[in-house]
Formats: sequence, structure tokens, C-alpha cells
Amino acid sequence: MQRLADRLRSTGKRIGVVPTMGYLHEGHLSLIRIAKKNADIVITTDFVNPTQFAPQEDFSTYPRDLPRDARLAEGAGSDVLFTPDTHAMYPENYLTFLDVEQIADVLEGKARPAHFRGVVTVVAKLFNITKPHVAVFGQKDAQQAILVKQMVRDLNFDIDVIIGPIVRESDGLAMSSRNVYLSSSERADATVLFQSLISAEESIRKGERQCGNIIKQMHDVISARYTAHVEYVSIADSLTLREYSQLNPGMHVLVSLAVRVGRTRLIDNILVSVP
Amino acid sequence: MQRLADRLRSTGKRIGVVPTMGYLHEGHLSLIRIAKKNADIVITTDFVNPTQFAPQEDFSTYPRDLPRDARLAEGAGSDVLFTPDTHAMYPENYLTFLDVEQIADVLEGKARPAHFRGVVTVVAKLFNITKPHVAVFGQKDAQQAILVKQMVRDLNFDIDVIIGPIVRESDGLAMSSRNVYLSSSERADATVLFQSLISAEESIRKGERQCGNIIKQMHDVISARYTAHVEYVSIADSLTLREYSQLNPGMHVLVSLAVRVGRTRLIDNILVSVP
Repeated sequence: MQRLADRLRSTGKRIGVVPTMGYLHEGHLSLIRIAKKNADIVITTDFVNPTQFAPQEDFSTYPRDLPRDARLAEGAGSDVLFTPDTHAMYPENYLTFLDVEQIADVLEGKARPAHFRGVVTVVAKLFNITKPHVAVFGQKDAQQAILVKQMVRDLNFDIDVIIGPIVRESDGLAMSSRNVYLSSSERADATVLFQSLISAEESIRKGERQCGNIIKQMHDVISARYTAHVEYVSIADSLTLREYSQLNPGMHVLVSLAVRVGRTRLIDNILVSVP
Repeated sequence: MQRLADRLRSTGKRIGVVPTMGYLHEGHLSLIRIAKKNADIVITTDFVNPTQFAPQEDFSTYPRDLPRDARLAEGAGSDVLFTPDTHAMYPENYLTFLDVEQIADVLEGKARPAHFRGVVTVVAKLFNITKPHVAVFGQKDAQQAILVKQMVRDLNFDIDVIIGPIVRESDGLAMSSRNVYLSSSERADATVLFQSLISAEESIRKGERQCGNIIKQMHDVISARYTAHVEYVSIADSLTLREYSQLNPGMHVLVSLAVRVGRTRLIDNILVSVP
């Protein structure tokens, strides 16, 4: 992969990379299309990264379908599918990890303590392997997007990071490889994540400024569904992820949440500018 | 610097980098000469990296002489001297650090807890800034050399790491920018680091296999000097840095030590193959 990247670079090609864990859906494909608009050659990486899963999480059952991924990625304009095996990425005696302090410790990082260490480490590795000019990540993983941008800036990676918007099903459910875990009743209840985000946005638009009230209302919306259980709801600064208790005009806030629907953990978020 | 590196790479030039903290001496110059043999263009980086110093250490007093460094580096064959300022390397809200587990926690890492976190972080940054094909480090900082090689392997940096041998004064003292701190009596006593290493090598050659005996003998050699105080003496595997209590034929060991000579902390080491 490095030799191919060198050859592409030496002939003046601009490389775009879209790191994924595979089981591609329309969200991933939208990122590939964005990469294609911003690069000559798009490399899609397809690697279920073990270091970002905790032992009790779903690494072993995470859905995988490489032939389907290859077909979908190519259809969206990807030129190269990079699918390393786990041992090649983490050989015997692997010892090096990256950490982004502070912003990795809240929200998803609080719920999943070693998650972002694994994420930023594998992203740095994939950058060094694919040597991109531009990298595209999804807003669905909002905190990951912030961390990757911070890591790229701090470690002087010479890479433009683009964040693509969330792609949703027609009923508002954010696309996720994990949606495949949902039973049909859970699938129906799962729309409540986006509904609660919309309710928060409407409240803010109508003038609500107390985050406690907004969060309570989101909890109420979600708990009306039998299979849905809130893990967290957060209203935070969209760059620093510092939680707000009260909103003021001009603030840019990330409203985000994690909800267990049955046994499946789903996340979603919305960016709101306080009028 | 990144644009210059891109231009050099696009014209097929091989880039060698020699990361230093400046105040160059013959040891650094030997590394520049090695880089020149292994690359078309040599970039010497000259940056006293604050994140590898603890608050009570000598960051503020570390010797600096940029005009002299520029002259010496050029004389040894360096083509580019890269001297970033501290704020450019660590802007406001800097949050990202690298860690190499296990091998960073012993020897120098035990004596200087955040030292190697700072070292591997700045080396990763300098790699991303200078985009080298080959990087040259000195064996003087033996543990640093091992850590950098591990980090390069683990994070898939596409860089060949070369370790240059220790350059010594005629009386055996390893060259170090910190030697300038020594008074004339301390300078005389400072030869004891190398003398103790030679005594260890001779003992091993003559058949001594108990590390406790070798270490005791080194302590005795060093404590005969009034201004010298041992911080640690170690006999460890040359790759894993696991300490040995007994030697066996065929082992490759790193005999290393840190000694305070007056108020100056010096380190030295020797690689020994057990016959």
C-alpha cells in the first residue's frame, strides 16, 4: 500500500482516504463520493479495529461482508480497497498508542474508556500507510471527528480532514452498520434518537436556554419507547465538548446522545447554532 | 518545511533527517554524515523540546547556540536546518501525545517519568513535518533509539531508522551537550561512566555471569570519584530492556547507567554480546 501511495504521489495524483470498519452503507458511500470530489484517487480502508473495542463489546460479532463492501465502494467511486489483516496491523509485541487528552475523556470516551485511544492510533497508522492528501470522516461519530482533527493538527499530519454530514434513513434513523442488529420492533423504536434531537433543536429555536430542561425533554421522548434506554444526553460546545448548563445566543452546540435499543447501542447527534 | 519536503520528494530526492536538540557536537555531526551517506538531502532539526523535560529539569538552561549549530551542521553535510519555535510546535490547546508501553517505563523512563512521552511525540511530529525516507539517531540515547524504532514499526512510519555509534572524547567520555555544565574536577570524574562500562565488559569477557556482581563492581568504580553518584546501573536485554540477573552465552545485553556528576546528570551505555 505504501509503495502504491508513493507511485501515485510521484505522478502528481492527489490521494483521498476514507477509513471505515466495513459493512458499508449509504453513509460511508457519501464519504467516498466526497473524497472523490477532493482527490484523484480514493482509498477506502476496511478494517474492524480491535483496539477500539472493549472486551465486552461487539468486536467479534461486528458485521462483515468484504465482497459486498468491494462492490459498493467501487460503485461509489473508490479506486482502492485496503483490507489489512489484524496481525499485520498489530503484530506481536505491539506497544505504541496515541492519546488525545481532555476531549477524549467525555461522552463516548467516558462510556467507552479505551475507545478513542484505539481510534486515533489506528487512524494514525492508516494515514502512514495510505499517505493521503485528504481524509474524510463522518459527522455521525461527532467526537471522533473532533479528535481526528485535533490529532492531525497536533501531530502535523499534512492532511486535510473533511467531515461529511450524517446520512439518514427516510424516517430519520442515522445510518449505522450496527442497525442490522435491530429487531423490527427495536428498529421502529430506534427513530426516537433523531426525534429527540429534533425536539431539542425546536426547543432551542423557540427560546429554551436551560440545558437541564432540554435534556429532560429528550429523556421523556426516548423513554416513551419500550426498548429504548438512554445512556447519556449531552449539550456541549461543538469544538471543546465542554458541557453547557445554559445556552447563550451565538453558541454552536453539539447535542449528542447514546441510547441502548434492546441490546444495541446507537449514537446520534445534531449541531445547533443558538439564535 | 512540508512544502520543501514535498518538492524534494517529487523530484526523486531521498530525504534524511537528524533530529537534535542543538548545541551540536561531534556526536551529532557523525549522525549528519551517516544521513548524508544514506540520503540526497539531509535535514537537521534543532529544537529543544519542552515536553521531554520535567519541571525541575534543565529545559531553561539547556545550552543553545543556533549560529554555531548552523555552521557545524552545514560543515558536516547538512542541507537544511529546521528550527521551529516552541509555540509553532505546541500551539494553544495542544492535546495529543504518543506512548510506547513497557519499554518506556524502565531505566531513563523510570527516572524521568514523562520524558519518553515527550520524545516520541516530538519525533512523530518532526517526521510528519520533514517527511524523511531515513532518520538517524544516536546510540548514546540507547533507550530512545529502541523506542523510536518501536514507534516507527508500530505506527507504520515509512522510514528507515539508523542508529549511529557513540562518539567519545579521547578519554572515553561520551559526547553530550550537557558536558558543558561540568566543572574541571567534575569533567575529570566524568570519565568514570565509560570506565565502569569497560570494567563490566571485561568482567563479562572473563566469564562473570552474575549481574549483581558486575553491577556492584561498577558501583565501586564510580563511587571512587568524589563528585560522582550513581542513579542507576542496568544490565538488560538489548531489545526488550528486560533486566537480567544472570547472563547466558549468546545474550545481547545493554549495560547502561545514569550518574550525577556534581549537579549534572550524565548517561552512557555499551552493547555486549555474552561469549
